[in-house]
Amino acid sequence: MTAILKGMRVIEGSAFVAVPLAGMTLAQMGAEVIRFDRLEGGLDASRWPVAPTGRSHFWAGLNKGKKSVAIDMRTPEGRELITRLITAPGEDAGLFITNLAVKGWLDHETLSRARPDLVSVTLTGDRHGRPQVDYTVNPAIGIPDMTGPEGLSAPVSHALPAWDIAAGGHVVQALLAAERHRLRTGEGQGATLSLKDIAAATIGHLGMIGEAATQGPRAKCGNALYGAYGQDFRCADGRRVMVIGLTERQWKGLVRVTGTEAQMERLAARAGKPLSDEGVRFALRQQITAILSPWFSARSSDAVARELDAAGVTWGPFRNIAEALRDDPDLGPDNPVFSMLDQPGLGRYPVPGHVTTYTGFAREEPVIAPELGAHTEGVLAEVGGLDDTEIQQLFDRGIVGDSTRQARATAA
Amino acid sequence: MTAILKGMRVIEGSAFVAVPLAGMTLAQMGAEVIRFDRLEGGLDASRWPVAPTGRSHFWAGLNKGKKSVAIDMRTPEGRELITRLITAPGEDAGLFITNLAVKGWLDHETLSRARPDLVSVTLTGDRHGRPQVDYTVNPAIGIPDMTGPEGLSAPVSHALPAWDIAAGGHVVQALLAAERHRLRTGEGQGATLSLKDIAAATIGHLGMIGEAATQGPRAKCGNALYGAYGQDFRCADGRRVMVIGLTERQWKGLVRVTGTEAQMERLAARAGKPLSDEGVRFALRQQITAILSPWFSARSSDAVARELDAAGVTWGPFRNIAEALRDDPDLGPDNPVFSMLDQPGLGRYPVPGHVTTYTGFAREEPVIAPELGAHTEGVLAEVGGLDDTEIQQLFDRGIVGDSTRQARATAA
Repeated sequence: MTAILKGMRVIEGSAFVAVPLAGMTLAQMGAEVIRFDRLEGGLDASRWPVAPTGRSHFWAGLNKGKKSVAIDMRTPEGRELITRLITAPGEDAGLFITNLAVKGWLDHETLSRARPDLVSVTLTGDRHGRPQVDYTVNPAIGIPDMTGPEGLSAPVSHALPAWDIAAGGHVVQALLAAERHRLRTGEGQGATLSLKDIAAATIGHLGMIGEAATQGPRAKCGNALYGAYGQDFRCADGRRVMVIGLTERQWKGLVRVTGTEAQMERLAARAGKPLSDEGVRFALRQQITAILSPWFSARSSDAVARELDAAGVTWGPFRNIAEALRDDPDLGPDNPVFSMLDQPGLGRYPVPGHVTTYTGFAREEPVIAPELGAHTEGVLAEVGGLDDTEIQQLFDRGIVGDSTRQARATAA
Repeated sequence: MTAILKGMRVIEGSAFVAVPLAGMTLAQMGAEVIRFDRLEGGLDASRWPVAPTGRSHFWAGLNKGKKSVAIDMRTPEGRELITRLITAPGEDAGLFITNLAVKGWLDHETLSRARPDLVSVTLTGDRHGRPQVDYTVNPAIGIPDMTGPEGLSAPVSHALPAWDIAAGGHVVQALLAAERHRLRTGEGQGATLSLKDIAAATIGHLGMIGEAATQGPRAKCGNALYGAYGQDFRCADGRRVMVIGLTERQWKGLVRVTGTEAQMERLAARAGKPLSDEGVRFALRQQITAILSPWFSARSSDAVARELDAAGVTWGPFRNIAEALRDDPDLGPDNPVFSMLDQPGLGRYPVPGHVTTYTGFAREEPVIAPELGAHTEGVLAEVGGLDDTEIQQLFDRGIVGDSTRQARATAA
């Protein structure tokens, strides 16, 4: 029993969400992932959310299970060290993921001179190499315009960095696909992609571009499910639930459990259109919601939950994230994906491991994020092939660092 | 020059976003992807957005470049045929992705009896196998609670099926990782994951669970960037832009181009906290926005764009999706990711190919989605190994179908 990517070694030069998430995912799949940072830490070292200690929950979450090396990249020696780590020998090494977009010493062309079979994946903001973030990409392609209450003219940006999350997945995919090709042919590969392209392509895949090109922009529809039936309801105790009638089976179950068959038949007759058509359900959603609402407003959210579950309806409660953490066993150690872990300066809370379970491998507990530079010495020795004297000199000259070194010296 | 996964064959039994997106991604990377559906089409055959013809932009987008076979899964013969396709021989075959979650004939245990080295990836709604969708998962974990205008108490669901998109990526990753392991060991693998777990784990990776566990739920912050500075502004012509001051470099660039250095210094002095601290920028965002607003309201959006670009500020315009399609070259054939394609019953519009470019491969144009069952005959012959008589009998008995067969017969 061992993790599915055991033996693979990946070097990561990154900041923020996408590439750190990709590296963390690979680490949780069993790869040895070595993230290098500046001596003072990366641009994301203090990214919110942060604890009162100043430690970043964000950094801790996105760098779990990695090794950390701290190197001064402004010095030629530092750059040479990083090049050496990225291009170190090994059949399952020579793999590099980055969003640093450094032209010259850190680009694929230059690095692959030192190791021609290098596989690198470089994520940029847009296809021209300019920085972009979810907060700018989303407005540019029209997602905030179609989010929010019906009739509102202002754009509403959402809280989830969805394109960064998608981009992290694409970086892993590109790395695995290129490494698969290398395994068969020996050929290296430089893969490039951008956050903006991922967003633009994905809304195309979802049919949104076709819709906009032929029918104009999609209007906001509040919390409704687009194109079929799905709506939020307020229960007697003021709590809200989201109820889905996307497939015919879900729709029939919803009508049955609420006992609204006769009213729905009358609505369909008045409209002259069958509610078995998902588009008709969307067009008539306000009338449908008016029919269903009394059932919800007459019951507590607990009663609603019991009856919907018993009827096999697809639904979910609305909660804030603290309530979710308190009430939803999927967000805690009852779920094999999560483990309760103590994290220095952050506290003890449920920490997620890899989401996929494989029949041939036991699940492994997540490993917390490293202290900055905690693996500098070990990695320089084992991967870089440097001897003790060379490593000591690099520390003495301030070209490499290890935030735990002082602490260790004191303890010793 | 050939696509990076050329030679790989994947069978897909799916509906809706995640698994179809995974299969489509693999197809755009060069794999032969065969999607099977019921004779009347899958649950997602008419998923919105749809064209006035009734054709689905959604289906066309998520099934590009696949082969389509239509098989009656209620019949034992139909089930046997699907089993035969999934477990057909071939070093680069025996790969199956699904969200149908059918226990018995279509589960990993049963299928791998026919091909012990089968790699399958099964996505469910939640870890208990129940259906869930983005519209229910998001409310349950608290994303709508933290989305929307500051001070609003109602939850705001966003328009993007972000977890489905993330899940599609995880399905591809699991398939490639398991196939890599099979290549080295010959061992098959059944991988399972759920949409809800992906959402729960990802908000953990982003630090949101740690934040909620130790500091309570995150408040809505409108269109502001969380934890640093980023805000939307209205320009003189009424158009909006999103401006980012996440890194120190971005922040300094923004202050410089707006000529607000002195005002920012006074703000920092009054607050007794440095604006070089990203958390201070977030805490003082309303005061910062008040200082910056006059610069934007005094300029047209075109002038703002020119000045921000010249200063290298990270920003983006707010648009609706039709404006994006008209004005943004990243969403059209100027971008190598897109090609203008004619699609039967849908129209001609920019269609995205794969987002990643590899140094060793030329980009390939996207291929449109198949008609339902258009490849039934060919796949049964080439993959299933059936002869003409057997295939004809299956068509005659209505066990398999091809929506183009009548059209072809008429044309012949």
